[in-house]
Amino acid sequence: MKGKTITEIKLGDTAEFTKTITEADVVLFAGITGDFNPVHIDQVWAEGTRFQGRIVHGMLLGGMISAVLGMYLPGPGAIYISQELRFLAPVHIGDTIKAQVEAQKLVEEKNRVYLRTTCQNQKGDLVMDGMAVVLPKPTI
Amino acid sequence: MKGKTITEIKLGDTAEFTKTITEADVVLFAGITGDFNPVHIDQVWAEGTRFQGRIVHGMLLGGMISAVLGMYLPGPGAIYISQELRFLAPVHIGDTIKAQVEAQKLVEEKNRVYLRTTCQNQKGDLVMDGMAVVLPKPTI
Amino acid sequence: MKGKTITEIKLGDTAEFTKTITEADVVLFAGITGDFNPVHIDQVWAEGTRFQGRIVHGMLLGGMISAVLGMYLPGPGAIYISQELRFLAPVHIGDTIKAQVEAQKLVEEKNRVYLRTTCQNQKGDLVMDGMAVVLPKPTI
Amino acid sequence: MKGKTITEIKLGDTAEFTKTITEADVVLFAGITGDFNPVHIDQVWAEGTRFQGRIVHGMLLGGMISAVLGMYLPGPGAIYISQELRFLAPVHIGDTIKAQVEAQKLVEEKNRVYLRTTCQNQKGDLVMDGMAVVLPKPTI
Repeated sequence: MKGKTITEIKLGDTAEFTKTITEADVVLFAGITGDFNPVHIDQVWAEGTRFQGRIVHGMLLGGMISAVLGMYLPGPGAIYISQELRFLAPVHIGDTIKAQVEAQKLVEEKNRVYLRTTCQNQKGDLVMDGMAVVLPKPTI
Repeated sequence: MKGKTITEIKLGDTAEFTKTITEADVVLFAGITGDFNPVHIDQVWAEGTRFQGRIVHGMLLGGMISAVLGMYLPGPGAIYISQELRFLAPVHIGDTIKAQVEAQKLVEEKNRVYLRTTCQNQKGDLVMDGMAVVLPKPTI
Repeated sequence: MKGKTITEIKLGDTAEFTKTITEADVVLFAGITGDFNPVHIDQVWAEGTRFQGRIVHGMLLGGMISAVLGMYLPGPGAIYISQELRFLAPVHIGDTIKAQVEAQKLVEEKNRVYLRTTCQNQKGDLVMDGMAVVLPKPTI
Repeated sequence: MKGKTITEIKLGDTAEFTKTITEADVVLFAGITGDFNPVHIDQVWAEGTRFQGRIVHGMLLGGMISAVLGMYLPGPGAIYISQELRFLAPVHIGDTIKAQVEAQKLVEEKNRVYLRTTCQNQKGDLVMDGMAVVLPKPTI
């Protein structure tokens, strides 16, 4: 795990990380963030919604995006400037989510990289889409 | 914990949630999201950065924003459409963070609420700023 | 989340919190408290008991009662004096439990509130019953 | 770990379990029970109270009592009937707590054991006191 500088990143470069989101992940995420929205932790209530059961916190997927940015592209040493996230479809407990980032714009004089950030489920549905701005570690 | 409809929300309404971010929170957040960026989990490495020690995952603060939106304003029944987050300053282990949301724009015909979403530390520094778009539970 | 003084509480006031108790909750509760009674963590052993499977730690429901007292009624600033709990029926992993408190006696000169504290499962069965004594935050 | 029947228990028998309560224990306990009372999770708020910092959830100590009852005295196979808890002094993060139970009354014809249940901190202060009623596993 070694961070890239902006000159080591090419347009179109991608990186990804995949995991199955378990019930334990959701329980712990609620506990850390304080997000006890019943749609995440009350199965009876959630069954009465359009989701027909508990769904995963969207921001947990945001955390998976952060993982890819901070570990692989650009990787360690990068500074996270901003993130825009659009939640497109519910994620259910047990879904397997692939978080992916793709370098879409490089502004070398400002050392900024713009990456499209997406999450897909095991069926290939796009469940989250967005854009990150990061400063890779300095070139020196 | 009862969700509000758009007609029950007024411009300027706010809600908040505060907690101290502990080392355990950061460890567990890493475990859930897979974000093992050394700046979060490697104290020696992190001491060599401009942060001079491990910092909290920015997306953990995103989760606290989600908590306020989903539990208080608008509260249960709301659908999370999108979130934009700007990371303004590092959050250190042991910092006490207040996550706050404020209704800034109501579009009744589309049932959309735009909320400014901020996090402040115990010194009052703005560490995260952004905007959320949510659909409150339907008015019937 | 703002604590009530005794003068802001009326007889019959109630507050509640509901969540589904997951296997992860039971595993973590065992880890925190050291309660590795096989009826909670050994599925094979527990299947040989009258419960026919692992059951949830009763004291986890006690913790949900504490949540309602400390967060909603009376809320922050209250001092927990005592709690009596009667365990009436087993709670199984996956059950959705509603913890509820109801103000039943107010002793203003001593600043004491007595609350009935109950837990019900998703079928409406009373699984725990008891009484709490708390000092709400001072009136001043 | 083998449960005792009532004929195997003598008045005055004791059992105990000791552990240091860490910040991680408190974070996880909040997450499981939903008890985000600021006195447990907001260091700044808690410093403004008479406790001068975050304190441990009292019911976590209740869980340690349950551990001793269910694992050692009477041990596996016992049924938990009721528990009365009196919270006598605050427990701080980092305190080392000894949970102890002592058989104080045996009612053989009803198979009931009454045990005094106490928690002491590392200074020997009694922080919790109470009484449990349990049915040991049947004699047969």
